[in-house]
Amino acid sequence: MVFRCELKKVVDDTYDIEIGHGLQEKLVADLKAGLTGRRRFAVITDSTVEGLYAKDIFEMIKAAGFGAEMFVIPAGEKSKSRQMKEFLEDSMLEKGFRRDCAVIAVGGGVVTDLAGFVAGTFGRGVPFVNYATTLLAAADASVGGKTAVDTPLATNLIGMFNQPEKVYLDIDTWKTLPEEQIASGLAETIKHGCLGDRELFEYLEENVEKIFAGDVAACEYIAEHNCAVKYKVVMQDERESGLREVLNLGHTVGRAIETVSDYRLLHGEAVAIGTVAQARLGEKYGFVTEEERARVEALLERAKLPVRIPDYIDKAALVKKLYTDKKVRDGKLRFVFEKGIGEVVQFGENCFAKEIAENEIAEIIAQM
Amino acid sequence: MVFRCELKKVVDDTYDIEIGHGLQEKLVADLKAGLTGRRRFAVITDSTVEGLYAKDIFEMIKAAGFGAEMFVIPAGEKSKSRQMKEFLEDSMLEKGFRRDCAVIAVGGGVVTDLAGFVAGTFGRGVPFVNYATTLLAAADASVGGKTAVDTPLATNLIGMFNQPEKVYLDIDTWKTLPEEQIASGLAETIKHGCLGDRELFEYLEENVEKIFAGDVAACEYIAEHNCAVKYKVVMQDERESGLREVLNLGHTVGRAIETVSDYRLLHGEAVAIGTVAQARLGEKYGFVTEEERARVEALLERAKLPVRIPDYIDKAALVKKLYTDKKVRDGKLRFVFEKGIGEVVQFGENCFAKEIAENEIAEIIAQM
Ligand SMILES: NC(=O)c1ccc[n+]([C@@H]2O[C@H](COP(=O)([O-])OP(=O)(O)OC[C@H]3O[C@@H](n4cnc5c(N)ncnc54)[C@H](O)[C@@H]3O)[C@@H](O)[C@H]2O)c1
Ligand SMILES: NC(=O)c1ccc[n+]([C@@H]2O[C@H](COP(=O)([O-])OP(=O)(O)OC[C@H]3O[C@@H](n4cnc5c(N)ncnc54)[C@H](O)[C@@H]3O)[C@@H](O)[C@H]2O)c1
Repeated sequence: MVFRCELKKVVDDTYDIEIGHGLQEKLVADLKAGLTGRRRFAVITDSTVEGLYAKDIFEMIKAAGFGAEMFVIPAGEKSKSRQMKEFLEDSMLEKGFRRDCAVIAVGGGVVTDLAGFVAGTFGRGVPFVNYATTLLAAADASVGGKTAVDTPLATNLIGMFNQPEKVYLDIDTWKTLPEEQIASGLAETIKHGCLGDRELFEYLEENVEKIFAGDVAACEYIAEHNCAVKYKVVMQDERESGLREVLNLGHTVGRAIETVSDYRLLHGEAVAIGTVAQARLGEKYGFVTEEERARVEALLERAKLPVRIPDYIDKAALVKKLYTDKKVRDGKLRFVFEKGIGEVVQFGENCFAKEIAENEIAEIIAQM
Repeated sequence: MVFRCELKKVVDDTYDIEIGHGLQEKLVADLKAGLTGRRRFAVITDSTVEGLYAKDIFEMIKAAGFGAEMFVIPAGEKSKSRQMKEFLEDSMLEKGFRRDCAVIAVGGGVVTDLAGFVAGTFGRGVPFVNYATTLLAAADASVGGKTAVDTPLATNLIGMFNQPEKVYLDIDTWKTLPEEQIASGLAETIKHGCLGDRELFEYLEENVEKIFAGDVAACEYIAEHNCAVKYKVVMQDERESGLREVLNLGHTVGRAIETVSDYRLLHGEAVAIGTVAQARLGEKYGFVTEEERARVEALLERAKLPVRIPDYIDKAALVKKLYTDKKVRDGKLRFVFEKGIGEVVQFGENCFAKEIAENEIAEIIAQM
């Protein structure tokens, strides 16, 4: 006997991404207006952002008459772990949080990735909001609903798709970012230019130094263009079943090198090296010209990003680690490629990644 | 500036529940026909079910030409933990599993709850299939898409809604179940009778002994009626935003006592005690008559289930633990009640749980 359990439904995960300067009051006003439907909040942040921004937000939320607790993880990629997820869950349970709460993530990509995952499985899912305080989170991590933790064997492989109720990109918070964190965010920005926004790429060729100087107009320009590239792709393919893989440009080698460096390289630094590897491979296939490849490398360098593999990296281990990439299919490596600058190569219907033999990429890695 | 990320979509999680005898070959045939869209399988089971059924299924899957590995957790509720989830993830990663795999859960509710959760977050979600080998899993756990782990502070609070591709309820596997496991499954069956199927309840009043004797017709009858009650509720309210709470009948006290007993009580045994507590509270409110309440207790006893709180339970700790229930709202306990036998009490639009003062339930617990 067979029963059919009919579960066809319309799901609306639509949300707003607000870009601005000092959005703390806007956040509290939105919570008052019922953004999450909850009146009790777990503010999740890291040890650096706590004193800079999160404590203020936490106090403002309490002052607005809501229940709130703040939970602080140590700053750094190593906190994006299952252990830290457990710590947050246990702390929330101890403070009496149940399904009737919402999570407010205040921080960079580590905080938004982890807090979004915590929210997704706490009480089988509570709402969450991202308040992004790094350029990298604004450019990439906080938008799109991918949440995850790292494990010793692979980055970002344990996680879920979980869309926030709203994302705040507060450009003012970039002022306190160390230079290498700005650079790290620029790596994803340059990636966005390469894969989908030639104008953004050329704007950066003109103005990249202005970002480091904190120029307001330049920061707004890249915040908006980043967002536009990313959310357009996400809207078309939320679950990464095809098109969304284009956002993975540079990430096949990037993710692997990030792990093999044991996170001595920042995410964006690793992605920069991965972008160079991918452009070189693309040049071999004729997807980009030598001149275009050189422009990509030059722009990454001006953005104070590494374009060579550091000496301490074990290249054999790096090649092996490539196989932990989530694009791997039937044991084969797959890469995304830019076509010139501002577009990607399409390899078939809904297919944007190409199978690559190990020796082809190993050769490029050896030369870098 | 505000971008709106439009993510409205139609999701179809419809799946079949197949009830029968010896469905191993059907499973393999379905996998061949592309049920999961994958060709590599992680068979997850426990140390008891491994030798009884899972190893055979695993061998059949390999013999059909698929890639497969088997992962075995120790039998028992204590395995439904975050640590065991980690162990499975790491083992799967070590064996080279990535997003291009599917999970086959073979076992009782512990295995299906845990494996469904592992599948939901592995590579941000891979498909899974449940092959249920206990009456309790057939009656309840394997159907409906709730997956979870326990934590020291609460049962089932960390997890997600994740629908399988298909569920197999193999009645033949009940033959090897110890008597107390049959009883445990009957607790959920009686619960289903109480909340939504008077005919099922009365059938059990006539025939409950036949289930222990392995009578084929009686086992089929309850498998089908259980399934009908549960999937109808789930279809109307997958996410437990209202109606689905009715399935929580008896679980407020049940879950709490299960934790406080440190899992010395089986899930169904704990639910049986919880069902009595709820019926007694319901009698006080006039939702059931004294006679109906007595019929519920008598049927539970004939199903070899406990109807009193064991002496070793600390009743103060039990009352405190009630507050970890997921129905708690704004710090208030909430209970579901049956109305007579075969229906539930509705307390408002889409509201099936009633706020209860702590002393009311504490009094009942004291008397039990
Ligand atoms: N979910 C996605 O789609 C996605 C996309 C890209 C990257 N990521 C993830 O994002 C993470 C990297 O993001 P990140 O670079 O923001 O990491 P991060 O959160 O670790 O932030 C970087 C550092 O800057 C500090 N910091 C944060 N805001 C600050 C501020 N305003 N002023 C001063 N210091 C501040 C942090 O404490 C941290 O030490 C990685 O884990 C990566 O995997 C996710
Ligand atoms: N997801 C849901 O909606 C839902 C609903 C109800 C219960 N549950 C969960 O289900 C769990 C209880 O389910 P369960 O009772 O099946 O637990 P279980 O999986 O632990 O199985 C009970 C015992 O029987 C053994 N066993 C399994 N199949 C057997 C067979 N055919 N022959 C002999 N022995 C066999 C197991 O090894 C185990 O020792 C709890 O964790 C509970 O929270 C979940």
